[in-house]
Amino acid sequence: MKRSIIPRISKKAGLPPGALVFTGEKKTENIRIQTFLYDTDTYKETEMATIPGDIFSPPASQVYWMNITGLHETQTIETIGNQYKIHPLVLEDILHTEQRPKLEDLDSAIFLVVKMVAVLPETLTLQWEQVSLIIQENRVFSFQEYPRDVFDPIRKRIRENRGRIRKCGADYLVYALLDAIIDEYYVALEMLGERLEELEDRVISDPDPEISRQIYHLKREMIILRRSVWPLRDVTVALERTESRLFQEDTTPFLRDLYDHTIQAIETIETYRDVLNGLRDTYLSSISNRMNTVMQVLTIIATIFIPLTFIAGIYGMNFEWMPELKWKWAYPAIWLLMGTIATGMMIYFKRKKWI
Amino acid sequence: MKRSIIPRISKKAGLPPGALVFTGEKKTENIRIQTFLYDTDTYKETEMATIPGDIFSPPASQVYWMNITGLHETQTIETIGNQYKIHPLVLEDILHTEQRPKLEDLDSAIFLVVKMVAVLPETLTLQWEQVSLIIQENRVFSFQEYPRDVFDPIRKRIRENRGRIRKCGADYLVYALLDAIIDEYYVALEMLGERLEELEDRVISDPDPEISRQIYHLKREMIILRRSVWPLRDVTVALERTESRLFQEDTTPFLRDLYDHTIQAIETIETYRDVLNGLRDTYLSSISNRMNTVMQVLTIIATIFIPLTFIAGIYGMNFEWMPELKWKWAYPAIWLLMGTIATGMMIYFKRKKWI
Amino acid sequence: MKRSIIPRISKKAGLPPGALVFTGEKKTENIRIQTFLYDTDTYKETEMATIPGDIFSPPASQVYWMNITGLHETQTIETIGNQYKIHPLVLEDILHTEQRPKLEDLDSAIFLVVKMVAVLPETLTLQWEQVSLIIQENRVFSFQEYPRDVFDPIRKRIRENRGRIRKCGADYLVYALLDAIIDEYYVALEMLGERLEELEDRVISDPDPEISRQIYHLKREMIILRRSVWPLRDVTVALERTESRLFQEDTTPFLRDLYDHTIQAIETIETYRDVLNGLRDTYLSSISNRMNTVMQVLTIIATIFIPLTFIAGIYGMNFEWMPELKWKWAYPAIWLLMGTIATGMMIYFKRKKWI
Amino acid sequence: MKRSIIPRISKKAGLPPGALVFTGEKKTENIRIQTFLYDTDTYKETEMATIPGDIFSPPASQVYWMNITGLHETQTIETIGNQYKIHPLVLEDILHTEQRPKLEDLDSAIFLVVKMVAVLPETLTLQWEQVSLIIQENRVFSFQEYPRDVFDPIRKRIRENRGRIRKCGADYLVYALLDAIIDEYYVALEMLGERLEELEDRVISDPDPEISRQIYHLKREMIILRRSVWPLRDVTVALERTESRLFQEDTTPFLRDLYDHTIQAIETIETYRDVLNGLRDTYLSSISNRMNTVMQVLTIIATIFIPLTFIAGIYGMNFEWMPELKWKWAYPAIWLLMGTIATGMMIYFKRKKWI
Amino acid sequence: MKRSIIPRISKKAGLPPGALVFTGEKKTENIRIQTFLYDTDTYKETEMATIPGDIFSPPASQVYWMNITGLHETQTIETIGNQYKIHPLVLEDILHTEQRPKLEDLDSAIFLVVKMVAVLPETLTLQWEQVSLIIQENRVFSFQEYPRDVFDPIRKRIRENRGRIRKCGADYLVYALLDAIIDEYYVALEMLGERLEELEDRVISDPDPEISRQIYHLKREMIILRRSVWPLRDVTVALERTESRLFQEDTTPFLRDLYDHTIQAIETIETYRDVLNGLRDTYLSSISNRMNTVMQVLTIIATIFIPLTFIAGIYGMNFEWMPELKWKWAYPAIWLLMGTIATGMMIYFKRKKWI
Repeated sequence: MKRSIIPRISKKAGLPPGALVFTGEKKTENIRIQTFLYDTDTYKETEMATIPGDIFSPPASQVYWMNITGLHETQTIETIGNQYKIHPLVLEDILHTEQRPKLEDLDSAIFLVVKMVAVLPETLTLQWEQVSLIIQENRVFSFQEYPRDVFDPIRKRIRENRGRIRKCGADYLVYALLDAIIDEYYVALEMLGERLEELEDRVISDPDPEISRQIYHLKREMIILRRSVWPLRDVTVALERTESRLFQEDTTPFLRDLYDHTIQAIETIETYRDVLNGLRDTYLSSISNRMNTVMQVLTIIATIFIPLTFIAGIYGMNFEWMPELKWKWAYPAIWLLMGTIATGMMIYFKRKKWI
Repeated sequence: MKRSIIPRISKKAGLPPGALVFTGEKKTENIRIQTFLYDTDTYKETEMATIPGDIFSPPASQVYWMNITGLHETQTIETIGNQYKIHPLVLEDILHTEQRPKLEDLDSAIFLVVKMVAVLPETLTLQWEQVSLIIQENRVFSFQEYPRDVFDPIRKRIRENRGRIRKCGADYLVYALLDAIIDEYYVALEMLGERLEELEDRVISDPDPEISRQIYHLKREMIILRRSVWPLRDVTVALERTESRLFQEDTTPFLRDLYDHTIQAIETIETYRDVLNGLRDTYLSSISNRMNTVMQVLTIIATIFIPLTFIAGIYGMNFEWMPELKWKWAYPAIWLLMGTIATGMMIYFKRKKWI
Repeated sequence: MKRSIIPRISKKAGLPPGALVFTGEKKTENIRIQTFLYDTDTYKETEMATIPGDIFSPPASQVYWMNITGLHETQTIETIGNQYKIHPLVLEDILHTEQRPKLEDLDSAIFLVVKMVAVLPETLTLQWEQVSLIIQENRVFSFQEYPRDVFDPIRKRIRENRGRIRKCGADYLVYALLDAIIDEYYVALEMLGERLEELEDRVISDPDPEISRQIYHLKREMIILRRSVWPLRDVTVALERTESRLFQEDTTPFLRDLYDHTIQAIETIETYRDVLNGLRDTYLSSISNRMNTVMQVLTIIATIFIPLTFIAGIYGMNFEWMPELKWKWAYPAIWLLMGTIATGMMIYFKRKKWI
Repeated sequence: MKRSIIPRISKKAGLPPGALVFTGEKKTENIRIQTFLYDTDTYKETEMATIPGDIFSPPASQVYWMNITGLHETQTIETIGNQYKIHPLVLEDILHTEQRPKLEDLDSAIFLVVKMVAVLPETLTLQWEQVSLIIQENRVFSFQEYPRDVFDPIRKRIRENRGRIRKCGADYLVYALLDAIIDEYYVALEMLGERLEELEDRVISDPDPEISRQIYHLKREMIILRRSVWPLRDVTVALERTESRLFQEDTTPFLRDLYDHTIQAIETIETYRDVLNGLRDTYLSSISNRMNTVMQVLTIIATIFIPLTFIAGIYGMNFEWMPELKWKWAYPAIWLLMGTIATGMMIYFKRKKWI
Repeated sequence: MKRSIIPRISKKAGLPPGALVFTGEKKTENIRIQTFLYDTDTYKETEMATIPGDIFSPPASQVYWMNITGLHETQTIETIGNQYKIHPLVLEDILHTEQRPKLEDLDSAIFLVVKMVAVLPETLTLQWEQVSLIIQENRVFSFQEYPRDVFDPIRKRIRENRGRIRKCGADYLVYALLDAIIDEYYVALEMLGERLEELEDRVISDPDPEISRQIYHLKREMIILRRSVWPLRDVTVALERTESRLFQEDTTPFLRDLYDHTIQAIETIETYRDVLNGLRDTYLSSISNRMNTVMQVLTIIATIFIPLTFIAGIYGMNFEWMPELKWKWAYPAIWLLMGTIATGMMIYFKRKKWI
């Protein structure tokens, strides 16, 4: 499914700010709420379809992660907002899925919006969704549009107590979620890179019009990717430099790592763009060359036969007084003349390097 | 109506600065002055055609909003300027409708100029006007060129006491007005985006010259949009960072929101520009390809028939001594020869991938 | 007269710095020196052809403005320089008319160089000259190359005591002079903008080669305009931020106004450049399209008639044994065959959308 | 071997950060570990295939350099990491060979990643590898992918005590290693520059399609080079400005030198890119010109002979009543007519400068 | 002689830093050493071929200028380096003639590298060389590659005590040398500008392929010029802002002047580049237009005569039963038919504006 480049937010025009309207398309049937509560030693996992009526305040030593999949029921989002005291503009941003990636350092919380990409394996196209994160003390809320398994490795690491995730706080969990999201960009970039290198091979060997379409298509994907990744860089910079007490100092190297990955994704996109531009130029000169070759064949055939046909036409005239027609050797002489003209022209073209 | 790219301000050349001359076109018949006076509990609405003779100083707890539609009577503007002590250069800027969007932090007031866009529903073209705002203590003056209903939802919210508008001060009103203006940009961007995606579909399937014209037209609209939105970004940044006591701290998240929307509008415009450039390239290579196809057909037909016609010409000559003419099987042999030549050429072209 | 893009300053190569050599062309016959001496109540105007022998020091309450038109007599410039203690490098810059617009904050004076443009009404071409300003305490010196009436409205305002000019100091006079110069840019931009919009209309309806020449010509004018206006921006910024005591605080809004006008001129130039680039692309695709149309007509005519002519050629051969020639219905049958071929091809081309 | 532009790091997707996975290709059969221990007076050199079991802490006056070639055995890297207390993320970066050049100032160490290029002499193609450096107190660890002799001159200088290397500390060794790496860029740039200048000569004399391919290929190499050199600039700036006590002040001029070399490499790349763009334009207009020439020949031949053939066709018609056929001088008159038409056309074309 | 774009410094690869190797070509036969020793009242000039054995320390009131022409004898450079305590890396930079223009503020000296350009009068090509300057207290060392007379006017000014050179210190001498070097850029820019304006005239009147070559050539010169002038700007900025006690305050206006000249040279180069790009576009559309015209002539001739020839072919057929052949008025009727067809087509083409 080709992602539209149009931000559909005029739906909201005329509404007071903070009005909760879901501006995306409904992408899953049922809302699904998964929670994890863990510390170094224990962990608890639940799955619900609705938000419980009362707020849950985990002890300071534990991390509480609530993952909400499906945003079309604004009621759920509003309930969470009320329970956990989230600013209405933040809730609006979560529902407004054409949001630009950004980080907002609120007083007691950090709010993050990023775009997540996925390669649909059947069609090799990209599917986009918005992921929002709210970090509060030892609570993390994540909002997704599609039910997808990008965060599954993290869940597994929590369950199996692998890596350092159970030993660290909510800030490390946020890092792990973002890392998983950025990793998906690389999967997308590899897929696009492979299509690009395939085009590279074809553009000279077989410059058919399909290539023009493919170049355009790849370029468009780059433009959309770029629009999502560039602001992600600002987000990671802001995270690395945040002075919020929600982020501890020993998480900084990991945030630095995130930044490095984002920069590398950006550079890869820019490289692809440069390569695509080179490809387009090469494609254009390929079809020019092809045209040239075709024209040359036409020119050679035409310029050789046109004079010859003219000569034949001359002696096909029915004038009564045409002495040549009576000569014995006229016919072979004409053949000779024609042969000489054709050969002369061939030599001329050969010298001009047209054949 | 296509917006001209020419700033018509030479009209003023030679006049002393501060001279009040309306440089736009007259866009409405009558000047219309609407005022609102409101606080949390009460609101009063009036509508006049002329400015009352004496200044109105509302109590500090109330917000006074005066909206002036129609700028061609400079007298009205001058009266307001004199009553409310507005700098002559500011009045000049209000009347000079080719002004660049900007914010000026005067001592006791803030002056804002922005461009408002509207999509005319009949022709799907964009109509532009200049909106100026003056914020003084608890007074807001807004100046429009066209009578239009962009601010109607705000009026409704004031009347019906919906949202937080009645609870907040003049600064929130300014935010609400700007938010309404920026929302209109999104309406315009969606309309343009739809035309762009329509072009995307057509550019490859049916690359007729009309597309070139449309691409040019869209590009031009982008250039004009860009020229209005980029400085808007500076305006919203300046608003967010203003240290003016006219803006209270709890309005900051809303101003931040304005900034986010402006940035997103800018990015959408840049994306459209990139896509348009890609489209132009694709269009150009489409027509190149088409030319190639046409040339190839011509070449094939011509190169096959030219030699054959030459042969027919040869045996149409009237030489007396042409022994072949007498041979019994000459005619079928000629057909055979021609068939062989034609087939040979077809195979050659097939191998060259020209057919 | 087309302005050359070549800075002719190698004339000076080898001379010691500060050497007074006029590097421009002589643009007026006689040097003309106009002076104004004014305060709120009085004003005195003189006109001379040579500099008086001794320095004139007006009282602190008055403003003294000396306007020198014509720079080819370096002697005059040198005399002024000696009398009013102007740095030799400044005098050199005044005479060196390929100077880049700049502001120099000397100890006791401010030195300004800007480019002035004028639209020659007969030919609608641009004429450029360099205007230099020296501001010293309550003295302003202005140096022009051409005798022209750009500053006449200011003279009139001084004489008639209109606006605030007589009430303000030398700094306001400088502002008024610069404002008059920038206003001329708008006159030039309007003229160019009109030619541009005229081109826009013609580029699609009638893409003749003349348009290519005009696009190039406009582009060149833009390049030259740009080169003069961009540094003007730095000049106005420097003026606005100057801490020189020669500029009083209440002139700042006017300097800000200058800056706004410069920015708007720059943006207009950039817009024109973008539009010109779009025009060039559209022009190129217009001529490509035209070529296509021409080729298609050729292809259709040729591909239809070439086979038909071949058939006619066949039955024009003079073989003795050609049984078809004897058949009664051969001739109409041939017409039928030809008609079928032609119709078939027409249908094929129709389907390919070539006609 | 053409370097892919795709960063292959999705292999790692789903793994916890810090997981040691070698993401490159195995480029050498055996891991090779070379160590140098030297001061002004003595030096000791060893070569091993595995890491010794216990940590080696050289005295403060000596420099210890360990060079590891071959990264596919993650076990070795992990052992070194454990022994010398290197952060897991650093080890991960060493193994992840699609890393972007960067410098990380850790508490007690500096970590550097750069790309090394080599010109393969047989094929004149570029081969890339990642070199990582860790500087700790008086220890330097360098990690390479390929066994190559770039560092040999440094080894020789250590052995033979040439230059200042034995007199200086670990910081100078790092400088020497980086200098050797940057020198290799110049070797690559010279090779590419020579191919570029060769293309320059051919592009006009003989614009065959091969040139388009070569331009594309060179452009691609530039893109890849650029991606490696630009971040190197940040690395050298960071080195020069580092406040780490690991770098002494008298090494600064050398680090400045590194920076200068990097900048010059960057400028050379940018120059090449500009030249390549110029070449592409020139190539495109060369083939356009060629097409033009070919078209002109066709046009001239065709437009001269088509009317003549038409005339011959007229008098080949078999109408019974065609009086001209009976005239005595008709035949020579026809020749004269044809000669006149042909000459007239030739003159016309000559005047149009088509021949 | 076309300047190569390849930096030849790989020669040095493998050598220890500070190794003195001359990387340029030998450009003069003999090294020539000229010295000047001057103050306000006296001056002394010498010329040698070798460096005297012992260091010369002029009294503080005098300026000592040593100009070395020819760099191929590294021994001479090394001697000077040893005598006057110049850092080995500086000496290396002097000999490495592919150095990038730069300024280095050493403790007791300032080191400057710039590129000098010269227009060879016979061929109107540019010749480049590197000029290095070392400023120490009251000593200035200048190193040139070619024996050339750029500094002759300065020598003359010293000898004849013209201008302020003998009254000022070493800093003014440095300024004078740099000023002379920058003046040469203007000579080069004028020469290139004249060639550019010549091209402008020819590109439309006579777009032959030679122009494409010339545009490419000029572009290449611009790229090289640009690469030399841009860093010069940094050098002049650094000079102007230097806090070195070697530069006195009253030299600052002169350094500012240098900066202005450099900026203007840069802007001229950028203008030329823009104009060249416009020229290239115009050239391309010129040849497109030409092609169009040629095609149109072919189309018109061919499309008019092809049907006519077909008709003639029809009546040249030898069928026995072709009733028209017997008709009395058939022949003139055919002429009439052909005339009608030809006229009809002419009108059609006229309407389509093809003729």
